[in-house]
Amino acid sequence: MAARKLGRGVALVGAGMTNFGAFPGLSTRDLFVDAFVEMRNSVDKGFDPADIESLVIGNYSSTLFENQNFTAPFMATALGLVPIPATRVESACASSGVAFRQGVMNVASGLADVVLVGGIEKETDLPTAKVTDTLATASDSQFENPSGFTFPGLYALLATAYMDAYGATPETFMQVGIKNHENGALNPKAQFGQSIPQIMASKRASAEKRGKPVPSWDNELAFMHDDRSNPVIAWPMRLFDCSPVSDGAVAMLLVAEEIAHNFTDKPLHIIGTGQGSDVPTYERESLTSLKCAKVAAAQAYEMAGVGPGDIDACEVHDCFTIAEVIASEDLGFFKPGHAHGAIAEGQTRRDGARPINSSGGLKSKGHPVGATGGGQICEIWKQLRGEAGERQLPGDPSVGMTHNLGGSGMAAAIHIFERRN
Amino acid sequence: MAARKLGRGVALVGAGMTNFGAFPGLSTRDLFVDAFVEMRNSVDKGFDPADIESLVIGNYSSTLFENQNFTAPFMATALGLVPIPATRVESACASSGVAFRQGVMNVASGLADVVLVGGIEKETDLPTAKVTDTLATASDSQFENPSGFTFPGLYALLATAYMDAYGATPETFMQVGIKNHENGALNPKAQFGQSIPQIMASKRASAEKRGKPVPSWDNELAFMHDDRSNPVIAWPMRLFDCSPVSDGAVAMLLVAEEIAHNFTDKPLHIIGTGQGSDVPTYERESLTSLKCAKVAAAQAYEMAGVGPGDIDACEVHDCFTIAEVIASEDLGFFKPGHAHGAIAEGQTRRDGARPINSSGGLKSKGHPVGATGGGQICEIWKQLRGEAGERQLPGDPSVGMTHNLGGSGMAAAIHIFERRN
Repeated sequence: MAARKLGRGVALVGAGMTNFGAFPGLSTRDLFVDAFVEMRNSVDKGFDPADIESLVIGNYSSTLFENQNFTAPFMATALGLVPIPATRVESACASSGVAFRQGVMNVASGLADVVLVGGIEKETDLPTAKVTDTLATASDSQFENPSGFTFPGLYALLATAYMDAYGATPETFMQVGIKNHENGALNPKAQFGQSIPQIMASKRASAEKRGKPVPSWDNELAFMHDDRSNPVIAWPMRLFDCSPVSDGAVAMLLVAEEIAHNFTDKPLHIIGTGQGSDVPTYERESLTSLKCAKVAAAQAYEMAGVGPGDIDACEVHDCFTIAEVIASEDLGFFKPGHAHGAIAEGQTRRDGARPINSSGGLKSKGHPVGATGGGQICEIWKQLRGEAGERQLPGDPSVGMTHNLGGSGMAAAIHIFERRN
Repeated sequence: MAARKLGRGVALVGAGMTNFGAFPGLSTRDLFVDAFVEMRNSVDKGFDPADIESLVIGNYSSTLFENQNFTAPFMATALGLVPIPATRVESACASSGVAFRQGVMNVASGLADVVLVGGIEKETDLPTAKVTDTLATASDSQFENPSGFTFPGLYALLATAYMDAYGATPETFMQVGIKNHENGALNPKAQFGQSIPQIMASKRASAEKRGKPVPSWDNELAFMHDDRSNPVIAWPMRLFDCSPVSDGAVAMLLVAEEIAHNFTDKPLHIIGTGQGSDVPTYERESLTSLKCAKVAAAQAYEMAGVGPGDIDACEVHDCFTIAEVIASEDLGFFKPGHAHGAIAEGQTRRDGARPINSSGGLKSKGHPVGATGGGQICEIWKQLRGEAGERQLPGDPSVGMTHNLGGSGMAAAIHIFERRN
C-alpha cells in the first residue's frame, strides 16, 4: 500500500490527564472533567471551549465497569459541549489511541477544525477478579475465554515463546519493570510512583515497624525474584510484570494545522498515524512479534518520512513487561531477538541510547485501559515541549512516538509527533 | 457554524444486509459474513476484497449480548481482512449511522480510498427482560436507570408530552405502526413482515383452528385498540408501537468519489452528513422534539445544499412510533405539531406526498440496534437505484435521507445521498 497523506495537516495543541490511580467515589464523568481542565490550562494561548466542534471518546467498557454504555454524549453533557457530535470508539486497551486517530481523520476530512479527543476508564469499583473477567471480554469469547485464558496467561504465552526463540530469561522482563518504576518515580501522575529501591526500603521499614523479620535483598533483581514480594501471576509474568488496575482520564485538543498558532507557538504536528489489526492469539503464525504493530508502525513511518532512528521519545504499551520487549523490536528499535540484550545493557533507560517509557509506562504510571493511549500522548506532549520535569529526556527531543495495543495484540494504533520550533 | 465540506467526495458503491430477525446459533461473526457477501454481490462491477483498506464497525453491545467486547478485529478476522485497521464505534442505537460517518471521514481524510462499514447486533440469545436491561445501559446509569426508566418509559414520556402539546392521540401512533407494517409486508428482509390486516387474518385463523372465539375487529384501529392483541407496554406506547428485539448485520462499501465508477455506474454520493448530541432526557427544555436530530439535519442539509422538500426517500428511526412522528418534524417535513395531522391524512404512506420508512422501519423490519442505521442506508441504496421491488417508491427517487437515533435522543446521525444518473 502506498504511503497515505492526510488531506490537511493536524496538530496537537493541548493535552491533560488526571492522576492515574484508584479514585473511589469518582465516576468517569468526574475524571474526564478533571482531565479537560488540565488540558485547557495546557493550551498556551487559551481557547474558548465553545469552539470545539466534535468530541471523540476512547472507552473500553464503562458498560461493564459502571453499567453505563453510550458514554460519549454523557461526556459531552458533563463538559457542557452538547449538541456537538460525540462519538465513542472502542478498541480494547487501544481505545484512546484509535480514538485519537479518528479525531485526526475528523480534522483532516474537513468536517471540523477543532476536535476534542478523550480517553476514560473507571475500573476500581469492581473487585480485581471481576476486572480481570471484564478485560477478558476483549479476548475471544468463542475460543480463548472458554479455555481459561485471561490476559496474564495470553501475555505469558508471548513471553515463553520469546524466551524459547531468543534465549531471553525472566530477568529481561524484571529489568523492564525496574526501569519503568525508576521512571515512574519521577512522574507525579503515576499510580505506583516508587522505584524498586524505594519499594524495598518501604517494605523493610514496614517489617521493622511490625517487628517482623526484615527482608535483606542484595539488589533489585533479588527483590524481583522473591516469591513473596513479587509473586508469580502467570509464569514468567510476576506481579511486577503486570500493569495495575486503574482509573483515569485524558483529554487532547486537535486542530487544523493552519490555525494551530492561534492556540500555541509550540504545537505538535501529527506527522504519522498507523493502525493495524490481527487475528486472535491462537491463529497466529508467530508469537514473538505482533503483526498489528508492525503494520501500523510501517504506515506511520512511511507517512512521516522518518525511521526508528529519528524517534527521540517513545511510549510503548507495556501492559505486561514482555509487551515492551516485543514493541521495541516491532517498532524497529532493535532487531528481532535483540531487545533483551539491549535492555540488559540499559539502552532503554532515560539516559540510554534508546529511551522507552520515560513516563513509567503502564507498569508504573497505571493502565486505565480506555485512557492509556491518551496517557502516552500526554507524555510525548510534555517531553517534546521540554516540560517533563525531573524525567525530561536529554537532547531536546523533537520527534516522539506512541504505541498503543489492544487485547493480546489484535489492534495497534501508532502515532508520530513533531515539534518544529 | 459555517457549512462544512468534505475534503474529497465519498460515494457508496455497495450495500447488503442479512434478514433481520431471531437467528439462534448464529453469532455476529456469522451474520456479518452473510451481510458482506450480499454487499459484495451488490457491487455492479465487482471488486477485490483485498482492496479494502479499513473497516469501521457499528456495534452497541456485543459485550453484554455475547460476552464479546473489542468486536472490530473479530469481524476483520471473520472476513480475512486482517491486518487492516478495524475500529468499533458505539453510539447506542445510532452505532452504525455514526460508524458510517466515521467511514466517510476515513475516506475524506485521505487515509483510505476504500472503506468497509459494518453494523452488527445479536440480541436474541438473552431473554427479553435482559435485553431491555442491556438497552437501558444506554440511558443514564446515575439518574434515569435507578429511577426505574427503561426505553419504553422514556419514549412514552415523549409521547405524552407530544400529545399534551399538540392534541395528538394514541391513534396517531397506531397509524404509524399500521403504515410501517404495510410497508414491511413488501420487504423480504423484515422480521415482522406482515401488514396489520394480515396479522388480523392470521390471528382469526389461529383462533378458529383452536376452537376459540374468533375476534371480530371492525378495522385495523380496532385491532390496535384491543388490549389483548396490542397490550400497553408504557402508555401510550403499546406492543405495536415498539420495535422488536432483533439480530442482524449490514455491510456498506464507501470509496473516494473519483474511483466510484470502477465499482458501479450508479454510485450514491454522500452529499450531506450531520451528527448531534443532547443531554439526558431529564435535563431537556423540550420533550416534543430532539435537538440532536435538528442540529444534525441542519448540518446535513447545509452541506448538501438541499432542503426537506428535495428528499425523495427517507428512513427515520422509529424505535417507537412517537420517534417517527417527532423525526418527521425535526427533519423539517412538517411544522412542529403538524406531523400527526399529516399522518392521519396518509401523507407518509408510500403513495403519499412525503413517504417515510418504505422499508417498514424499525417497527416491522426489525431493530438489531448496532445494525439499524446501516439497515436504513441499505433501503436508501435500493430505493435510489430503483431496486426496491414491490415497495419501490414512485417518481424515480434520486435524493434519499437516513435519520438514526441513539438512546432517548442523546445522539443522531443523519446522511443525505444522491444518485446523479
